[in-house]
Amino acid sequence: MVVEIRNPIPVSEAIEKVMAYSLQGQKETISFHACDNRRLAEPIIATNHIPSFDKSPYDGFAFRSADTAKASSDNPVKFEVVEHIGAGQLAAKGLESGQAIRIMTGAQIPKGADCVAMFEDCQVYEQNNKSCMSIQQEMNKEQNIVKKGSEVEKGEVLIATGTLINPGVKALLATFGYHEVTVAKKPKVGVIATGTELLDVDEDLEPGKIRNSNAYMIASQIIQAGGEYHYFGKLADEFDPSYQTIKETLDKVDILITTGGVSVGDFDLMPAIYEKLGAEVLFNKVAMRPGSVTTVAVREDQLLFGLSGNPSACYVGFELFARPILQRYLFNPKFHLKRVKAILTEDFPKPNPFTRFVRSYIDYEGSTVKVRLAGIDKSNVVTSLAHTNCFMILPGGTKGFAAGTEVDVLLVNDTEGQEEF
Amino acid sequence: MVVEIRNPIPVSEAIEKVMAYSLQGQKETISFHACDNRRLAEPIIATNHIPSFDKSPYDGFAFRSADTAKASSDNPVKFEVVEHIGAGQLAAKGLESGQAIRIMTGAQIPKGADCVAMFEDCQVYEQNNKSCMSIQQEMNKEQNIVKKGSEVEKGEVLIATGTLINPGVKALLATFGYHEVTVAKKPKVGVIATGTELLDVDEDLEPGKIRNSNAYMIASQIIQAGGEYHYFGKLADEFDPSYQTIKETLDKVDILITTGGVSVGDFDLMPAIYEKLGAEVLFNKVAMRPGSVTTVAVREDQLLFGLSGNPSACYVGFELFARPILQRYLFNPKFHLKRVKAILTEDFPKPNPFTRFVRSYIDYEGSTVKVRLAGIDKSNVVTSLAHTNCFMILPGGTKGFAAGTEVDVLLVNDTEGQEEF
Repeated sequence: MVVEIRNPIPVSEAIEKVMAYSLQGQKETISFHACDNRRLAEPIIATNHIPSFDKSPYDGFAFRSADTAKASSDNPVKFEVVEHIGAGQLAAKGLESGQAIRIMTGAQIPKGADCVAMFEDCQVYEQNNKSCMSIQQEMNKEQNIVKKGSEVEKGEVLIATGTLINPGVKALLATFGYHEVTVAKKPKVGVIATGTELLDVDEDLEPGKIRNSNAYMIASQIIQAGGEYHYFGKLADEFDPSYQTIKETLDKVDILITTGGVSVGDFDLMPAIYEKLGAEVLFNKVAMRPGSVTTVAVREDQLLFGLSGNPSACYVGFELFARPILQRYLFNPKFHLKRVKAILTEDFPKPNPFTRFVRSYIDYEGSTVKVRLAGIDKSNVVTSLAHTNCFMILPGGTKGFAAGTEVDVLLVNDTEGQEEF
Repeated sequence: MVVEIRNPIPVSEAIEKVMAYSLQGQKETISFHACDNRRLAEPIIATNHIPSFDKSPYDGFAFRSADTAKASSDNPVKFEVVEHIGAGQLAAKGLESGQAIRIMTGAQIPKGADCVAMFEDCQVYEQNNKSCMSIQQEMNKEQNIVKKGSEVEKGEVLIATGTLINPGVKALLATFGYHEVTVAKKPKVGVIATGTELLDVDEDLEPGKIRNSNAYMIASQIIQAGGEYHYFGKLADEFDPSYQTIKETLDKVDILITTGGVSVGDFDLMPAIYEKLGAEVLFNKVAMRPGSVTTVAVREDQLLFGLSGNPSACYVGFELFARPILQRYLFNPKFHLKRVKAILTEDFPKPNPFTRFVRSYIDYEGSTVKVRLAGIDKSNVVTSLAHTNCFMILPGGTKGFAAGTEVDVLLVNDTEGQEEF
């Protein structure tokens, strides 16, 4: 038996090797009504001034400021109220001197008027069956008028390409009439699980077998990252059918992710499959735990991610290596998971020869970020990923960490990301 | 003109009044493949032991530990390797004394074996055309065997009702064979925009008019909160058609949200519509900015949220008052937005008679949470919601806040929430 020797490379180097292969993102134009949680493939540009007309910021009266030139408490100036308009209504005709129009917040300033007085500053009364109001103070030209274009000028770039469409972005798209939106096409990511031991989720347990959970977990991670997953089933550890399925699947997807088969066990077939495919293996050993056997290969500019069959390793492998490529495909310039610092709330006594990515949970105490392991009891192994909202990065070559230490954490639920790993 | 006097109530009291009306959440059973981002309406219970059989944690050899009773470097014990199994494969027959089975990680321990030795501890060789191995140390009963049920016992409650289905939860559902999942039904939330000034997103601008953005922003907030939105269009400020549409819409939805028409302007019709509907107004003035005119009414146990026509006020009103009701409907016991503390990075010099919810952006500096306003230039008013990831809560009765002050912030992108406001 020849034991293959693999040379582990640092995580950052592995990420660089993956990112050197540029998957070209594509655009598509979709209905405004279906654009939630997609990423913009073009910036949002103001298609009109905001406001698009001079408008009133208050409920009050619009008139000519010159009419109030000598107004005072001793000399109230009187106006006839000739019209009454709300937002969206236009005055039927222009204003003459001595006339006022009762106007509501958001309504367009009538022709002839150049200021608005708030209700509080006006006395309203009836005289000879006519609606009147008087004012005891001078008003300035343009007082209480929100000028056309004062908030946004037509042509301004408001939101950058790559931004996730959240409720605030959606409001902007509506405001500027983007009834169709050009978004990043979702990359098609194929998922295949390998392993003779795997049963499907609807199958009863059999001796020696377990249900496939990694493929579905990754499907969920792909959705979260903004991709479109295509599940191509599970493969028993048999070379020819596995090779054939993987080869055919490559034609149907932008990226292929497999789980399992990348270790050095007797039935780990992926290394031989990469070889027969003529794929160049970028790395097959990373100096990290879990996920040291994570393998990435390239075949004709197409990336094949060979993630570990171990659930935590599989999860981390996706987040560290596959997620950034998907983000670039989606025009998001912040490829990587957001990394922040947090204070460890419990001892982590394990010696640490390799960099460790520990399933963890961040929370806050006052304005300080705290982090703890994502599970504490024996069900930990199985349930901890469900409770994970970050990965603690514990550098290798250490003898453990004491509570109170500041550590780096990667936020897995954050949708913004950051530019550097 | 009679000016209506409204009595503002504190935000927390307004929230309590809304939460006093219990909307009963409903369950539905859906395919496992469609369950991402839904909330569990029943806990996940382990349907089998994990592992469901005694398994090997290593690549190595399985045999009887008793055979190594006197093994040492001077007295290596020899085994004949009679079979070779990988994960998912079962040994064809039980082991006799002196026999070993080559076994891979994850494979079921063969009958007759009671320990596993790692490859590193064994010498492999051929003898008389037979595959053999020897070991120079004593092995203990159950050494290197992961016992059935040692990680999870059948019947254990693993994940609570109300939990959002993330990749880790999905992996658990797969592991335990939940090919159908009982989730919270999405509440049907009706959305109607009011205002004569409103144009639809696909309409060209007209004098005095603006495009409806609030309804679509809320639709997006409803999606984010886990609800299902139903948009019933926009209504001009005319009483009879508005009343009729709102009345009919109430029969089609669980909750109704309107935007606009709740202030005291001449064309604000919602107060009169609530009256004619026989709806009880829980409050129509809240001691906060923006959103002071936020109104909530109840008609036959059905909640009507009357949000402000101002975009920021509308956004805040949804998050503070409507989101918690949706969370309860979705079985999430953490109704409210997560509230953390953060250090203000810039002066906020405005005097503050009322509690203010300021569109803001949190970030991190070391392990400290920092917060700044979500916009800094004049486009602020229009674009700031797109950049908002939290609301700073600035208490009323203050003269402004200096950089360095610790303030409360509500996280709007967090999906976990918290139990108390």
